[in-house]
Amino acid sequence: MNVADKNLARVGSDELAANSPDTRTRHGKLVSPVITLAHGGGGKAMRDLIDDVFIEAFSNPTLNTLEDQARFQLSDLARYGDRLAMTTDSYVIDPIFFPGGDIGKLAICGTVNDLAVGGATPLYLTCAMIIEEGMQVSTLRQIVKSMADTAKAAGVFIVTGDTKVVGRSSCDKIFINTAGIGVIHQDFKLGADKAQDGDHILVNGYLGDHGAAILNARGDMHLTSPIESDCAPLHELIQTLLTAAPNTRFIRDATRGGIASVLNEIAAASKCAIEIHETKTPIRQEVKGFCEILGLDPLYLANEGKLVAVVPANESQAALSAMRDHPLGKYSADIGSVLPGGRAGRVHMQTSFGGKRIVDMLVGEQLPRIC
Amino acid sequence: MNVADKNLARVGSDELAANSPDTRTRHGKLVSPVITLAHGGGGKAMRDLIDDVFIEAFSNPTLNTLEDQARFQLSDLARYGDRLAMTTDSYVIDPIFFPGGDIGKLAICGTVNDLAVGGATPLYLTCAMIIEEGMQVSTLRQIVKSMADTAKAAGVFIVTGDTKVVGRSSCDKIFINTAGIGVIHQDFKLGADKAQDGDHILVNGYLGDHGAAILNARGDMHLTSPIESDCAPLHELIQTLLTAAPNTRFIRDATRGGIASVLNEIAAASKCAIEIHETKTPIRQEVKGFCEILGLDPLYLANEGKLVAVVPANESQAALSAMRDHPLGKYSADIGSVLPGGRAGRVHMQTSFGGKRIVDMLVGEQLPRIC
Repeated sequence: MNVADKNLARVGSDELAANSPDTRTRHGKLVSPVITLAHGGGGKAMRDLIDDVFIEAFSNPTLNTLEDQARFQLSDLARYGDRLAMTTDSYVIDPIFFPGGDIGKLAICGTVNDLAVGGATPLYLTCAMIIEEGMQVSTLRQIVKSMADTAKAAGVFIVTGDTKVVGRSSCDKIFINTAGIGVIHQDFKLGADKAQDGDHILVNGYLGDHGAAILNARGDMHLTSPIESDCAPLHELIQTLLTAAPNTRFIRDATRGGIASVLNEIAAASKCAIEIHETKTPIRQEVKGFCEILGLDPLYLANEGKLVAVVPANESQAALSAMRDHPLGKYSADIGSVLPGGRAGRVHMQTSFGGKRIVDMLVGEQLPRIC
Repeated sequence: MNVADKNLARVGSDELAANSPDTRTRHGKLVSPVITLAHGGGGKAMRDLIDDVFIEAFSNPTLNTLEDQARFQLSDLARYGDRLAMTTDSYVIDPIFFPGGDIGKLAICGTVNDLAVGGATPLYLTCAMIIEEGMQVSTLRQIVKSMADTAKAAGVFIVTGDTKVVGRSSCDKIFINTAGIGVIHQDFKLGADKAQDGDHILVNGYLGDHGAAILNARGDMHLTSPIESDCAPLHELIQTLLTAAPNTRFIRDATRGGIASVLNEIAAASKCAIEIHETKTPIRQEVKGFCEILGLDPLYLANEGKLVAVVPANESQAALSAMRDHPLGKYSADIGSVLPGGRAGRVHMQTSFGGKRIVDMLVGEQLPRIC
């Protein structure tokens, strides 16, 4: 009761503030310069915020109906393939703005990539925000613009959403969930369990940039050449790869847990042994240095624009050169293979010193709130 | 860097704690008794948590593949209708356990209802959790069990998910996002803009229970007869209603903002006037009393198991009696109608004293974190 009373009083004064002339937006609607609890209340303030910030940026015919659900003809979806793919991720990254991106860009790329790695054409995304009371509307607008720009670049539409506001210090600035659907073409049958002896392991460039960038953005190392997150939508690159190597067994974006975790998942699911080579694994000098100082292993650092692909030997050259022709695959590399006769479920690395070390799954947490 | 170092250290000690024998679960897996940052790290601890808590409770063939995406044959979906519906909601309710439900039950009912009100058969849900470090695994298990039970009752499957853990006081206990898809039968064409003069306004029972229950659970009024949330999946009731009244214009669950907000949305979208009658509007005596003491209007109180339906006059009797035959519609009522010649966009109520008052959209926030 006390809580509610206090909030009623607070909202009352915010509503007054919202009526001062300098908060009138270009649409003539009244949006307070800061997010208040009323913006999540289901009433007028929420409707104004949705109209003025979300609809304004994401505008498309499906979203603009303002129904609680988006609707699509199944016959339209069937033009892309025979299977619907569905995925979700919540983004809680800290800081929300970082070199190479922000939480909004990440929330689109992450979900687009989760669809694309399964061979799906990403089509429609939802956007659910949990916003901390007191956030500047201008900050929210910046995040939303970044989402809109990234969605446009990725060819997807944000078709429905949800806005919740929680009291100060009940969440840290903003959390965004995106769920997405796409359609998988009938020719693609990818799976972590499909790796076979002799398959090659490809990656599309430098590993660990995102993890290092976030760690650097949070810390106090003040690197002279700041590392940028690799955050990018990979759907085009993946289509290119699948066209060049139609018998590709499996693709996965190497996010939390890094490529080490993806390789271990493949080895476990396909009951095979995987060998990678340190000298062939592309890691920037800055990231290597950064990891040495902090005692981290770059194989476990998160990426937001890097994939691991398992490709049959006879298609690996074609795949690699197609990937290298794409802007997001310029530094693609063939880093290893599925080893016949190796111990099933085991991943190891040939080190640059000629030794061999086991690459296990991540134990513990290298870096919280990385995505 | 400081932040990361601290977290690394903390996770180290949690990992040790996880190895003490009393935290070994019935599957022999090692899950710490409290949630640590490692449970969101993408490595072994997260995989164990997912296996032991989520897969254990939600188990179904699609989820169990552990792919980052769920996949469905479009031809299977087409058996339910011609249009795919998609929706999302984040749940941030406080408290997370309340009379009549908990955040888990709510997260399923809310999304099932958002699909069902559009005439869709709810089919598949995603589940993305943001968990505060330090939550008891037993509490999480209880929430997950509640989700599993509610999903089973609603006939939907949780097919993919995401787990994030944020540091202490970076979120308040747990936030859950569910996104859902369903398929709409070709016969149903519902829309907020389809209300016509003379249509009847039906509700399926007592209004405001959820809002009052949450307010009461938070406050210090110590009511002798505690009010229970009406939280329930409405898909069956809606199918019953649509069978009895196939020309139903529009259905919406009256959540945040209460029935007042839904009626205003209909009046605005259909450019019509709506009149409701106070004497016909079912509100429990306890809720009325509660609202009087706190100066609240029950028309704005949230519901989580109540819908507003706009039904043509000639089908309204059939709709009402079909609804009353369903356990979730026993106290259904015909509370008003679309008034020919009234002022477009306006909702008013005939009061029990014979007067007339305008029912506007909610301004401000009656009660934050109600769902």
